[in-house]
Amino acid sequence: MAEEAAVRAQVEAVRRLKQDKAVPDETAKEVAKLLEMKAQLGEDEGKHKFVLKTPKGTRDYGPKQMAIRERVFDAIISCFRRHGAEVIDTPVFELKETLTGKYGEDSKLIYDLKDQGGELLSLRYDLTVPFARYLAMNKITNIKRYHIAKVYRRDNPAMTRGRYREFYQCDFDIAGQFDPMIPDAECLKIVCEILSDLQLGDFVIKVNDRRILDGMFAVCGVPDSKFRTICSSVDKLDKVPWEEVRNEMVGEKGLSPEAADRIGEYVQLHGGLDLIEQLLQDPKLSQNKLAKEGLGDMKLLFEYLMLFGITGKISFDLSLARGLDYYTGVIFEAVLLHQKNEHVEEPVSVGSVAGGGRYDGLVGMFDPKGRKVPCVGVSIGIERIFSILEQRLEASEEKIRTTETQVLVASAQKKLLEERLKLIAELWDAGIKAEMLYKKNPKLLNQLQYCEDTGIPLVAIVGEQELKDGVVRLRIVATREEVNVRRESLVEEIRIRTSQR
Amino acid sequence: MAEEAAVRAQVEAVRRLKQDKAVPDETAKEVAKLLEMKAQLGEDEGKHKFVLKTPKGTRDYGPKQMAIRERVFDAIISCFRRHGAEVIDTPVFELKETLTGKYGEDSKLIYDLKDQGGELLSLRYDLTVPFARYLAMNKITNIKRYHIAKVYRRDNPAMTRGRYREFYQCDFDIAGQFDPMIPDAECLKIVCEILSDLQLGDFVIKVNDRRILDGMFAVCGVPDSKFRTICSSVDKLDKVPWEEVRNEMVGEKGLSPEAADRIGEYVQLHGGLDLIEQLLQDPKLSQNKLAKEGLGDMKLLFEYLMLFGITGKISFDLSLARGLDYYTGVIFEAVLLHQKNEHVEEPVSVGSVAGGGRYDGLVGMFDPKGRKVPCVGVSIGIERIFSILEQRLEASEEKIRTTETQVLVASAQKKLLEERLKLIAELWDAGIKAEMLYKKNPKLLNQLQYCEDTGIPLVAIVGEQELKDGVVRLRIVATREEVNVRRESLVEEIRIRTSQR
Repeated sequence: MAEEAAVRAQVEAVRRLKQDKAVPDETAKEVAKLLEMKAQLGEDEGKHKFVLKTPKGTRDYGPKQMAIRERVFDAIISCFRRHGAEVIDTPVFELKETLTGKYGEDSKLIYDLKDQGGELLSLRYDLTVPFARYLAMNKITNIKRYHIAKVYRRDNPAMTRGRYREFYQCDFDIAGQFDPMIPDAECLKIVCEILSDLQLGDFVIKVNDRRILDGMFAVCGVPDSKFRTICSSVDKLDKVPWEEVRNEMVGEKGLSPEAADRIGEYVQLHGGLDLIEQLLQDPKLSQNKLAKEGLGDMKLLFEYLMLFGITGKISFDLSLARGLDYYTGVIFEAVLLHQKNEHVEEPVSVGSVAGGGRYDGLVGMFDPKGRKVPCVGVSIGIERIFSILEQRLEASEEKIRTTETQVLVASAQKKLLEERLKLIAELWDAGIKAEMLYKKNPKLLNQLQYCEDTGIPLVAIVGEQELKDGVVRLRIVATREEVNVRRESLVEEIRIRTSQR
Repeated sequence: MAEEAAVRAQVEAVRRLKQDKAVPDETAKEVAKLLEMKAQLGEDEGKHKFVLKTPKGTRDYGPKQMAIRERVFDAIISCFRRHGAEVIDTPVFELKETLTGKYGEDSKLIYDLKDQGGELLSLRYDLTVPFARYLAMNKITNIKRYHIAKVYRRDNPAMTRGRYREFYQCDFDIAGQFDPMIPDAECLKIVCEILSDLQLGDFVIKVNDRRILDGMFAVCGVPDSKFRTICSSVDKLDKVPWEEVRNEMVGEKGLSPEAADRIGEYVQLHGGLDLIEQLLQDPKLSQNKLAKEGLGDMKLLFEYLMLFGITGKISFDLSLARGLDYYTGVIFEAVLLHQKNEHVEEPVSVGSVAGGGRYDGLVGMFDPKGRKVPCVGVSIGIERIFSILEQRLEASEEKIRTTETQVLVASAQKKLLEERLKLIAELWDAGIKAEMLYKKNPKLLNQLQYCEDTGIPLVAIVGEQELKDGVVRLRIVATREEVNVRRESLVEEIRIRTSQR
């Protein structure tokens, strides 16, 4: 009966899901799956049964996935550390009002907590708004920090392509009043370093500036009131062709066809310093104050990127708009180019793996006196990077170790559990990573097999003769070589033999 | 007007809070605070204002706190790794039904998510139930894993004593069918290693067994149906005196005074192997099958702990009960003893810092066929450990560094921004941790001061003469010594001079 209630609840949930505009195209599949489940339930009536799964759009990370994940984190954290960042952490939920009015059209994707009495709470949607709240609350006007944590979006998941409802963001931000474009250039350098370090193949970082976009909208004849919504349309250009975006602008959003066509000409443009120079000469754009400011800063940015030696990876791209409301200056987004990987038959299409920009007004929204703290930052989205590395690893021969154990404490005969316990405690206390089988009398063959299976390189074997002689037999798993080591030298011997790891 | 709505919402929230039995004694304070806020609003009418805070029972971790936190994590993770554990991660929320019926009376503390269409979700309450769900879902019958993540309890926070609504748990568990007490002993060894390593002062690990408790209840004349609720009463003995617990048993829970008094005699007992031997001879307990099994295993456990050399830290304590429903065998809890620390004037009372036990039935609750996977594990609660270390650090003179920067790239004259950018990119690309000030023309004194403030040990100074000579002036901040280093040797020189870190 409990299971019937569960299915009824789920069918009801799907009905609600249908009404939810955020997730329309999954609905049909879900309904089919549920009807199938219901049919099965009819047969199994009465059995103990409930759905054993993680919530929609989430996943567990098993030991192998964690090993990949920690490699990625290591690369990212050492880059952030190399650039002198401190680290902070904030709660997974915020007061609901803290998130209100920060995300524009995306606000509908925020997870709210149930009102159980007390404050109204929401799960964080990104790490940027909590960061701004943290700065305002602690009156911090100057910090360079990173923050790696999970964020939550009630979005339509596409898990094979690394799009989840719970996912990690790795954010690096520089807050403070500084000379123009120096911190902005560092953020781009960081993206280059991390993506190169992770060997994800070729990539490009698209760069634009909200001021250039707004100037462009103005000279194309977009009314001020339509800037943000037209910006949202432009943001879709990486997924849909210009014709569709144009239709949305003219049809849905009521822009004049002439204005749309003028925008259409600009958003095709992408290039480097030459394009910036060309636009600075553009008869219309050069007359617009905002656009001129943005283009001037863009030129400065490219000069700094040249000194960093990374202009080859950067494309000034007038079609880049970014979805979020809070950007005020430079914006950027890193995309992986076509995957060429011999191990993977079908390349994974992953799109954007990092993005960010300048948001000079966000902290001021939290400050009681509206005091601004200029900020620029970058967010690395690692779920997509994981999907690539995970699939690459699966396709390859590489065997990934999920423990760091240096030595297995084993016994050659029966009745040696006590001796194994004594020896392993000695090793642990000396800082050696050691395991033993949790059996009283394990067979030596099973103990050796365990090492083969898990990649443990050494076996410390205690036997009656060895105990009498005050030695331990140390076996090197890879070569099957065995040497007797005096008990007092065992720790040192293990250290030497595993020092490369 | 927005602020009035906010206050109204909060007053309404407090009204609801009053009805919420889980948090009664904070209500008065909250109401007072809100009335005060409302009064202030009356004065400031019209100004932009809202509450700038983290949710109740949560906190931010700034760079200094994070530095302490990472030290603690390092100690814990290296211990878990030393014992051969793999690592996993699970989502922060689970299907609501996954958590249902696992926590007994504590279920009311679970955070639910709002029903926004789709599945009903709850934030995880601990890492043990998600672990059991993970095992059953993936049909894993054998794993040793750790998991470090935040859990959520809508409890009454006491933040100065390290009790939060969002807090970390560091769990190590061994799942699988093994010979008795070997994994259980390892869990206790792990607690000893971690608490010793963190130098938190003296501690003791209380140990008991649910089978001994149940046997004791039986021979004292507690009816079977009252075992769990009387167990909950016993669990309060670490916070309230016996008389109060006895009153609850007899008054609220309807136990006979005689039975309560018999329990009262047993729960005073604590000791070591001698006490186990004594109870094995106890005329009543020795007749009870469950108690006998538990005492036999307890004896075996103590033998193993002796081989591990840690019986000095272990106390077999019949008053230890543990709150959660799912334990089936050995249970334990580590408490810090009176803090003696010269730096801290008033010692922090923190109580339990780790706990755990055996739960052989939990995985079976998730398996469609009820297949059991025996498990034993330990959970380290680091928030309380943080409070101690944080207060100790504040009281001490120690200056904790929050970045790892090895060198500041500085300039001696104006107009050298480009040269600084070029040099710092060279250093980053060589893996050196380097910073620079984000100003076009910073004063040398300000650059040196920044190093003093943040603990950066070296300064690489570019000046016109140095550029001509192909050298960089390297300044050692601590000694104010300066040496000219050829540009091509700079990376190596920095590595050597910072190699101890």
